[in-house]
Amino acid sequence: MKLVSQPLSKENFAPFGEVIEASEHANNQMNSGTFARFDNLATVTNAPNGANATISMVRSQDPASLPYEFNLIEKHPLCSQAFIPLNDTVFYVVVGPRGDAIEAADLQAFVTNGRQGISYFPGTWHMPLIALAGGQEFLVIDQANLPGNLVELTLSQSLTLNA
Amino acid sequence: MKLVSQPLSKENFAPFGEVIEASEHANNQMNSGTFARFDNLATVTNAPNGANATISMVRSQDPASLPYEFNLIEKHPLCSQAFIPLNDTVFYVVVGPRGDAIEAADLQAFVTNGRQGISYFPGTWHMPLIALAGGQEFLVIDQANLPGNLVELTLSQSLTLNA
Repeated sequence: MKLVSQPLSKENFAPFGEVIEASEHANNQMNSGTFARFDNLATVTNAPNGANATISMVRSQDPASLPYEFNLIEKHPLCSQAFIPLNDTVFYVVVGPRGDAIEAADLQAFVTNGRQGISYFPGTWHMPLIALAGGQEFLVIDQANLPGNLVELTLSQSLTLNA
Repeated sequence: MKLVSQPLSKENFAPFGEVIEASEHANNQMNSGTFARFDNLATVTNAPNGANATISMVRSQDPASLPYEFNLIEKHPLCSQAFIPLNDTVFYVVVGPRGDAIEAADLQAFVTNGRQGISYFPGTWHMPLIALAGGQEFLVIDQANLPGNLVELTLSQSLTLNA
């Protein structure tokens, strides 16, 4: 099954999570107006047990290429998970609605504009992050090591992500 | 009083917070080894009431220049606060030990290498963020709007931050 991506926006990503990008107009100021603040772009949802989220970095070392075929998706039921590129980096996001069951036909693909980051809501099904070049760095905010926070699912049908 | 900065490292910043940067060797892998993961660089410490942290962005619009004179410092007693540059950006960090009282002589200055971000521990006294050029963007992870989470102090003696 083929997946064609659409440009990512706050609106079309709203069922799945939050888009982390500066909008045209700041919604706050900081430090006597020396900084425009784009406040509260995403919430770091914590696990019910009150564990703290952590800030990590990842760096691509074995890049993928398009078209990209995959059948494994995952979700993190207990916490949000954010990926923000540390330099201008276009990346693809494939997501499906929260819930126990999901099929290939339920998934949608988005492509970022190079400046955008994303935060998945807890439970949003998603394709594991891929990079299209080596050395791409992302900041990650999640609770990766929390027991029970990774659910993987092999789809009955493979998906092919296109540019 | 003059403040001369030293290069920031995990070691010299340890009393004040955490340095967010990829080290020489990854301490984890992600997604079948397609990404090196530099895991748990900083902890997002939540307020005792369990409020969630948020992810925001700031963009400099009225840059400062060195030498920079200031006498206002602040702390966030309830949560950690992280600043990570979204592109290579050198910035200055002035901090003092946690505690109720602090004087100008207690403060230390650090300068980042352009790739480093930082996370202040709850309660670490710090100079409000300054930028040395306009349009510099930082990701911020904090609980900015939490009541009681901003304490400001005017030092009896001004400090001058030098390059």
